[in-house]
Amino acid sequence: MKFCSDCGAVLEFKIPASDNRERAVCPSCKTVHYVNPKIVVGTIPVWKDQILLCRRAIEPRYGLWTLPAGFMEIAETTEQGALRETLEEAGARVQLTGLYSMIDVPHVHQVHLFFKADLLDQTFTAGEESLEVRLFSPPDIPWNELAFLTVHNTLKWFTHEQAAGNYTLHVDVVHSASKYIVAAS
Amino acid sequence: MKFCSDCGAVLEFKIPASDNRERAVCPSCKTVHYVNPKIVVGTIPVWKDQILLCRRAIEPRYGLWTLPAGFMEIAETTEQGALRETLEEAGARVQLTGLYSMIDVPHVHQVHLFFKADLLDQTFTAGEESLEVRLFSPPDIPWNELAFLTVHNTLKWFTHEQAAGNYTLHVDVVHSASKYIVAAS
Repeated sequence: MKFCSDCGAVLEFKIPASDNRERAVCPSCKTVHYVNPKIVVGTIPVWKDQILLCRRAIEPRYGLWTLPAGFMEIAETTEQGALRETLEEAGARVQLTGLYSMIDVPHVHQVHLFFKADLLDQTFTAGEESLEVRLFSPPDIPWNELAFLTVHNTLKWFTHEQAAGNYTLHVDVVHSASKYIVAAS
Repeated sequence: MKFCSDCGAVLEFKIPASDNRERAVCPSCKTVHYVNPKIVVGTIPVWKDQILLCRRAIEPRYGLWTLPAGFMEIAETTEQGALRETLEEAGARVQLTGLYSMIDVPHVHQVHLFFKADLLDQTFTAGEESLEVRLFSPPDIPWNELAFLTVHNTLKWFTHEQAAGNYTLHVDVVHSASKYIVAAS
């Protein structure tokens, strides 16, 4: 960020009055340009004991498997965003059955939210951002070909609890720079 | 948003290739400037059966009561942000005991997260953004002088469940343009 998006002036970086951290401040129109974390919303679409996964047709993590998820848009709710991403990426219509995981990914300034979801039918199909979409029984999940650590952790918790049918909200943080790390947006 | 924050050129508003909604796009450096919802993080600080509230020293809602909360910053987690805001606004040190409510406020592009929290001691004090900070027993909460509908709803649920000591995660949406509505950030 170098220029004021409101007036075009060159920005200064300083701590504004009554603040305690450096911001991009416009010396001309005085606007303070805050930068805040983004929300990624997605679902865990279930059909009987199977889980729907998408193989990514885009970078980052082209060719790896993920739960349907993406950046929340303005003027929608978290649940609407999760439903939209599930439809866009997997062509799947689901009914949400509760928030399942909230995982902070602070090094890329993101918070990932996954909702439990029941598939309404089996008419799913790969969207523009997916190479293929498939149902997996828990033992068949491609654990070594998952795109993101937040998806990996969510699927681990979910499949573990699936047998007992007793689900708990998981609030977690991902710090590791492992191979599963989400690329900066 | 009128100017590219990366190169200073005048932005165009159009639907980029492989997208499905209008974005601010730079015709010069080609950057797409996405706008996404912001996260507000806060706590419900409890001491025995009492709840800590702050009276706002800033707009919007100057003079009204709220739970300690504010915009999540980059490079922190939701829990770290909730702890930071509780310290900044109420001078209070707490231990978090779980996510309690997640409330979408789509008309102002926000998601509010409140964590249950136990006060570690009674040394709280008003921060720069608070006129005063006080503990309230549930019957004494100033229901008609609360700043935000998300705080109102969270306190209603919490005080209702407090008697039984059995807390449930609440996922909700606030659409109303009532007197409690959060001002656009």
